[in-house]
Amino acid sequence: MAAGGRIHSPELARKVVPADAAAALIAPGSTVGMSGFTGAGYPKQVPLALAKRISEANAGGARFRINVWTGASTAPELDGALAAADGIELRLPYQSDPVSRQKINDGLMEYIDVHLSHVAQMVWQGFLGHLDVALVEVSGITADGALIPSSSVGNNKTWIDQADTVILEVNSWQSADLDGMHDIYYGTALPPDRRPIQLTRPADRIGEKYLRCPPEKVVAVVETDAPDRNTGFTEPDEASTRIAGHLIEFLEHEVSRGRLPANLLPLQSGVGNVANAVLAGLGNSSFEDLTAYTEVIQDGMLGLLRSGTLSVASATAFSLGPAAVNEFNDNAGDYRDRIVLRPQEISNHPELIRRLGVLAMNGAIEADIYGNVNSTHLMGSRIQNGIGGSGDFARNAFISFFVTPSTAKGGAISGIVPMVSHVDHTEHDVHVIVTEQGLADLRGLAPRRRAALIIERCAHPDYRPMLEDYVDRALSGAYGKQTPHLLTEALGWHVRYMETGSMLP
Amino acid sequence: MAAGGRIHSPELARKVVPADAAAALIAPGSTVGMSGFTGAGYPKQVPLALAKRISEANAGGARFRINVWTGASTAPELDGALAAADGIELRLPYQSDPVSRQKINDGLMEYIDVHLSHVAQMVWQGFLGHLDVALVEVSGITADGALIPSSSVGNNKTWIDQADTVILEVNSWQSADLDGMHDIYYGTALPPDRRPIQLTRPADRIGEKYLRCPPEKVVAVVETDAPDRNTGFTEPDEASTRIAGHLIEFLEHEVSRGRLPANLLPLQSGVGNVANAVLAGLGNSSFEDLTAYTEVIQDGMLGLLRSGTLSVASATAFSLGPAAVNEFNDNAGDYRDRIVLRPQEISNHPELIRRLGVLAMNGAIEADIYGNVNSTHLMGSRIQNGIGGSGDFARNAFISFFVTPSTAKGGAISGIVPMVSHVDHTEHDVHVIVTEQGLADLRGLAPRRRAALIIERCAHPDYRPMLEDYVDRALSGAYGKQTPHLLTEALGWHVRYMETGSMLP
Repeated sequence: MAAGGRIHSPELARKVVPADAAAALIAPGSTVGMSGFTGAGYPKQVPLALAKRISEANAGGARFRINVWTGASTAPELDGALAAADGIELRLPYQSDPVSRQKINDGLMEYIDVHLSHVAQMVWQGFLGHLDVALVEVSGITADGALIPSSSVGNNKTWIDQADTVILEVNSWQSADLDGMHDIYYGTALPPDRRPIQLTRPADRIGEKYLRCPPEKVVAVVETDAPDRNTGFTEPDEASTRIAGHLIEFLEHEVSRGRLPANLLPLQSGVGNVANAVLAGLGNSSFEDLTAYTEVIQDGMLGLLRSGTLSVASATAFSLGPAAVNEFNDNAGDYRDRIVLRPQEISNHPELIRRLGVLAMNGAIEADIYGNVNSTHLMGSRIQNGIGGSGDFARNAFISFFVTPSTAKGGAISGIVPMVSHVDHTEHDVHVIVTEQGLADLRGLAPRRRAALIIERCAHPDYRPMLEDYVDRALSGAYGKQTPHLLTEALGWHVRYMETGSMLP
Repeated sequence: MAAGGRIHSPELARKVVPADAAAALIAPGSTVGMSGFTGAGYPKQVPLALAKRISEANAGGARFRINVWTGASTAPELDGALAAADGIELRLPYQSDPVSRQKINDGLMEYIDVHLSHVAQMVWQGFLGHLDVALVEVSGITADGALIPSSSVGNNKTWIDQADTVILEVNSWQSADLDGMHDIYYGTALPPDRRPIQLTRPADRIGEKYLRCPPEKVVAVVETDAPDRNTGFTEPDEASTRIAGHLIEFLEHEVSRGRLPANLLPLQSGVGNVANAVLAGLGNSSFEDLTAYTEVIQDGMLGLLRSGTLSVASATAFSLGPAAVNEFNDNAGDYRDRIVLRPQEISNHPELIRRLGVLAMNGAIEADIYGNVNSTHLMGSRIQNGIGGSGDFARNAFISFFVTPSTAKGGAISGIVPMVSHVDHTEHDVHVIVTEQGLADLRGLAPRRRAALIIERCAHPDYRPMLEDYVDRALSGAYGKQTPHLLTEALGWHVRYMETGSMLP
């Protein structure tokens, strides 16, 4: 037994090698499916060893690059190191690493921005090409070779099923009490053989505790004892607190109108400080017995579980700051019955999100006056992170909220613009927009009414008159009055920012 | 018994009145849920009588308007007549009537463009307000008062369930053999009470043959004998035929690669001449034993059913030209076992489209070089029809195709532009674009590769050099190289068209 007593299978224990020996098994040009989702459960040592190997090869004049598929974002030791080594040809489905982001926006790395629920299906469909290696962190291996997943599940089931070979990192830093927290659903299939997914409550368990993996596929096992590299959340600032306040007031109003149950419907919350503030706000509200059917469990959600405001949370990964991760690891056994970690194709599945009636709360880079939302691109061209699961949730939610401060860069950028420079969520799919200024409930409103409400409720006062002026002139000058736009200046605010550093004249 | 022997319930037969008496039961300011989907199964007489009443009232200085909710588009006797009378305050979720379209784009009518699968849910959710009257065409009434649906189902179940009062038109022109063709699912609910929809094949029947309606809710029954006003399709032109050819070649290729079964997966096809040409092309191909899980059964699909190429078709409505409708009415009994008409919340349900792995083929007004699609707005402002079910299908399809001729207006408009002027389907959801020039399979391609392929395969030669020039300059001048755009000219082609009548310089 090795790795802090985590490898109980003698057959797999015999495959333990150092990280560089494992990295040597990944050939140039390979496609590697790696674990990792929002900085949780990614392999810690083999990517670093691989980056070193790639750097040396590239320095010698070779061209050593691989394609990297993951669950979502990872950490500097994976995305950062491999990108810095110019080792990534193609990256999907999500990233948030600064080095990686720069390489992508410099045109040096290809990046495909994919709905997180679609990734597994795409790989099974076959058009993405062959998956050579699965490189997956686990928290342990049972005596009969089953894999105890780590702090994220992501696409690990699909990577292991589809890859020719499997490299495991067994991380003894992860809590041993993760054992039993996962629910790995093996009922997916390609059409025409798909069947209904029989899940009707966030707490339902429909799968197995462990990942199946034929031992003969495993070519290397690496022992690690390294923490997840989760970023801390900042204390809610005033804008985030006000956004949370507007949102909670709206939810209370919907309950009072009989349009939501008193304990709401399952919550989904994107990652980030604003989302965290909303969760903190729920903790201070009168809501009780809430549930979550979401992508990641972040600090705020763990806090709601701890206080009992949240009875259960289903997700595919943790995304905890340093303090929260310690608290979780110290008490993982207590959380186990109230947390279910699933493959991301299930945590983000359209069928389940629609059925459960999820209340989806996601961040926006910008929204426009007609309710279109940009979640991914700065000034229409520069990728920030990616769409992640926001489309999976917003498109199928009972109510889809998008939250953003009304300004960014000290007021130089307006979060509400005449026309977004990139559309990730269309006017058809955006129900409610919230800024610190207020909340606009767009449901059941035709476009011109949406514009009036968004400007009145959500725009910053510095930009409100400019937006009103745009709408007034568009109404008389546009090609049609359903969605009045002046195409000569619809993107003019972005142009002005790029030219002058501010959207203000 | 009356209406060609179609009213078998004595209680409801006693409620037969002339159309103007029924129209008198609809008060100013009412919200009326009407039957009708793509010119099939809409009420024929009461809307005309109501339009007359509204015209007279408005001429007398009153303001008589109603809100009109339907399944989708209807016909001149409904949308046209009521819009011409300035009788519609708010219209949803889809329209295609020229008079109605003009009123909307003149800013005289409000229009909310909604995913067709979302309408019923929205009404149950409650934020759209109260539904006063359901005005529904049926093809007959059974002895115990159950309603035999007509040539479309649409949202009729929801209208009847939700409205205070129900007005029925019993249309004896509709084939009596429609009886038994429908499958009305009564298993929907609001969350948290939703359950899996246990449908796994297009032919599955999971509901009831008839619409339930408490007889006491029925305030009037009107007898009609009037044809559906379906528009004829034109014979496929060369562009449509070539689009169909590219698409079928692609499907054959996917089968040969083992990525689709030999009998494909359930087909969905939008309405229109291009879609009809694709269906005609399938009829001339070697494909056999196909199925359809779609929104409407149009001429081409009926032809495939007749020839046996298509074994079964599930939809919510017919959309047949004059010749095809006669053929159908003469042989409806023969078709009955192979056609299932469902509520549109089921025909278009994300859960089912994803599970079945539908191959979704929909028309586009324009697509851009990065794969975003505009289905609704001319020059970003002027609504054409609406998004209809294209989003329901594209977002959840196994493969989502968008088809469009590479030019319109005799070459003055390019179907492929630098940036679409309105986004209905984002780059994340568009898999394949087809014009008569060729087909671009965008799956698994990062944005710059998509641009190169779309320009090479799909753009018209007159516009190709302009697009290549844009991409070249954007690559050096854009704010980032993930999705290079020049925002000063991204919408410049549309501006040029509005100013000069052509996108060509």
